[in-house]
Amino acid sequence: MRIALLGGTGDLGEGLALRWAFHTNHDVVIGSCDPDDAHAAADEYAETVAAHGRDVKITGFENGMAADRADVVVLAVPPYNVADTVESVSDGLGADDVLVTPAAGMQRDEDGFHAHPPGAGSVAALVADAAPDDVPVVGALHTLPAGRLADLDADLGIDALLVGDDDRAKGAVAGLIEDIDGLRALDAGGLANAAEVESLPPLLINVARENDGLADLGVRFE
Amino acid sequence: MRIALLGGTGDLGEGLALRWAFHTNHDVVIGSCDPDDAHAAADEYAETVAAHGRDVKITGFENGMAADRADVVVLAVPPYNVADTVESVSDGLGADDVLVTPAAGMQRDEDGFHAHPPGAGSVAALVADAAPDDVPVVGALHTLPAGRLADLDADLGIDALLVGDDDRAKGAVAGLIEDIDGLRALDAGGLANAAEVESLPPLLINVARENDGLADLGVRFE
Repeated sequence: MRIALLGGTGDLGEGLALRWAFHTNHDVVIGSCDPDDAHAAADEYAETVAAHGRDVKITGFENGMAADRADVVVLAVPPYNVADTVESVSDGLGADDVLVTPAAGMQRDEDGFHAHPPGAGSVAALVADAAPDDVPVVGALHTLPAGRLADLDADLGIDALLVGDDDRAKGAVAGLIEDIDGLRALDAGGLANAAEVESLPPLLINVARENDGLADLGVRFE
Repeated sequence: MRIALLGGTGDLGEGLALRWAFHTNHDVVIGSCDPDDAHAAADEYAETVAAHGRDVKITGFENGMAADRADVVVLAVPPYNVADTVESVSDGLGADDVLVTPAAGMQRDEDGFHAHPPGAGSVAALVADAAPDDVPVVGALHTLPAGRLADLDADLGIDALLVGDDDRAKGAVAGLIEDIDGLRALDAGGLANAAEVESLPPLLINVARENDGLADLGVRFE
């Protein structure tokens, strides 16, 4: 499968690109607003994977071209850029593609981080509103610790939650998740359940801030 | 320490009563609106613990009398009863006591369970508003699976999150949590961070509903 990581030069994009390139045979495409940034990141990630003993080809393109080439498009951009990014790449998306949104609206104050969903109720709902009607949307990857993904020597042993209304699309994303060693995909229901999943990232940050020795946390349901 | 479980005849109250009675030397007091129900539950729990080889005394009282006797008062009542319960027991509470709230506001629809905080922003904020000013409030125990607590043969191996503004009170509750084998207490910050913790129970229920073989789930941060 071909996976495009839009905003793939950011932390989560880097972590996911490295893991999919290292653990699987899927094609990884880095997208960015600036194609030069995308090329540079793709080359850097390929070198990192090569340094871990695996020769892979990772390509980089402007977001729209990256999305156009891919079967699964991950919106690894900040939540306030999500709707614009979806609109800018919509022409290249069809019913056979899958749009994946890992973003969570958050606000920070002196106490910590707080869930701050967009007016649509969740980032996933915002993406579904912005995307062409026939393109399935899956909310996933919200709670994965970017730094641990990017450290190919780090063990994961954590869960990734999915929400979505299209079973084929959700199954495809669950498969991509479980292709990474140490990740388990768990279904959290339809897109209407996205807000509860998107509330978890601020909690993970608060727990990491308040407890010595915990950082870059993931979560496991057991 | 003496722990009162108000609403101690319910599922979470039962699970916590059995675990504290079985694993620790703390005094466990069951509170209920009806003192006869409280007595009956206390006797039943003591029999269950005795059947696991440990003779303990568990007592039962009307909620107000149970709170009056205790150092730590756990509000194991439904969220819509929390404020009334706090007001009904306030006379017996002082600055040396700790009020613990494990409740989370939830709503169910055809998609699943959703966070539904009270107007105060969180159940913990509601409790803090209803409690006398000098009584410290700790939000905790929200994500513990009642059925697994009540099964004394079940392994736990899960985390319990705490929020609160009073370090002594939070430390006391963290200690009571870690006195139970297999539970780790994790600080999630001040009471202002309670809403993110209270969003987790509906997510746990959704994940258990949507994935075969998962039930009575807890969560672990790692």
